[in-house]
Amino acid sequence: MGQLWSPLVVVTSHWRGKANAQIAVSVGAASVVPEQPRVVVQIYKENYSWELLKNSGAFALNFLRPDQLHLIKAFGLVSGVDVDKLSDIAHRAGLTGSPILEDCWGYLDCRVINGMDGGDMTCFLAEVVDGETISEGEPLWWPQARRVIPDEWNLEWDAKIAEQIQKSTQRMGHIDYTSWNPDK
Amino acid sequence: MGQLWSPLVVVTSHWRGKANAQIAVSVGAASVVPEQPRVVVQIYKENYSWELLKNSGAFALNFLRPDQLHLIKAFGLVSGVDVDKLSDIAHRAGLTGSPILEDCWGYLDCRVINGMDGGDMTCFLAEVVDGETISEGEPLWWPQARRVIPDEWNLEWDAKIAEQIQKSTQRMGHIDYTSWNPDK
Repeated sequence: MGQLWSPLVVVTSHWRGKANAQIAVSVGAASVVPEQPRVVVQIYKENYSWELLKNSGAFALNFLRPDQLHLIKAFGLVSGVDVDKLSDIAHRAGLTGSPILEDCWGYLDCRVINGMDGGDMTCFLAEVVDGETISEGEPLWWPQARRVIPDEWNLEWDAKIAEQIQKSTQRMGHIDYTSWNPDK
Repeated sequence: MGQLWSPLVVVTSHWRGKANAQIAVSVGAASVVPEQPRVVVQIYKENYSWELLKNSGAFALNFLRPDQLHLIKAFGLVSGVDVDKLSDIAHRAGLTGSPILEDCWGYLDCRVINGMDGGDMTCFLAEVVDGETISEGEPLWWPQARRVIPDEWNLEWDAKIAEQIQKSTQRMGHIDYTSWNPDK
């Protein structure tokens, strides 16, 4: 299963004057057509971003360079409900209105076209309406980040994941796993 | 976008006596709960596997070792409509009835719990009911395979992708991209 997470992305969203940024590793390519790039991204329902993203029908994926580890702390280990996580970080509004980080490995600005309930998360399918690769080399992946961030952040991250596992376990239980109907 | 495809997997499926295997690079992890692993996988609607997978509500993901390049030819470059692709390859029925390759990097046997229409493909969300990592090291990724397979296979692959791009372009156009409704 460890092979199936994605590069680390900062998912940004904006709705009615509120903006947020969160870390995710659950992004995938979803189109083979070069002129119509698409992605899937899974967002936990408890996340503040989920509300913004769902209501605006838009988000941006900002990939990080391997030297941007500080943003894991800034975006991944605090909640946007209490703090404006983007206030100190240079950004601009993308085509969809979603914040684009001025300094990143590259970004994809996306408009949602469908959504699938996963119990604890929604899996969004989105069209990429704008995007750019800014840096050379590879973007940052979480296993790579984990080896070099301070121990304290790793502990904070582990605590956060432990909490998410509890929440997800509760929510995932609400689905009837035997109810697949191919014709629905 | 190139960073967002997954390791190469052989997606196997079985329905009413018919079995198939196809190559995909569109798999992602979809659960943070160790006791309830889940995946998402995208399957093109034209693929023979799509019919089997949708009707059976089950599939297995068989990851390849870097030395199993010949299976790209066997599973990726022919259609299962005409040929029983699994007839010469050692396999057994998994818990879900889906074929599990005896010789592979590792596998995940999965039961579908939800599906999302992507126009040209369906994105399936599935519970992993059984699985094992058999080999050491990393599984095979497509960019890695592409550099070492015969030129002829690369040309065949390119032709296949070109055909898929045409089909996908037609099918993706059927979706109204502006119709996202967060409350649906």
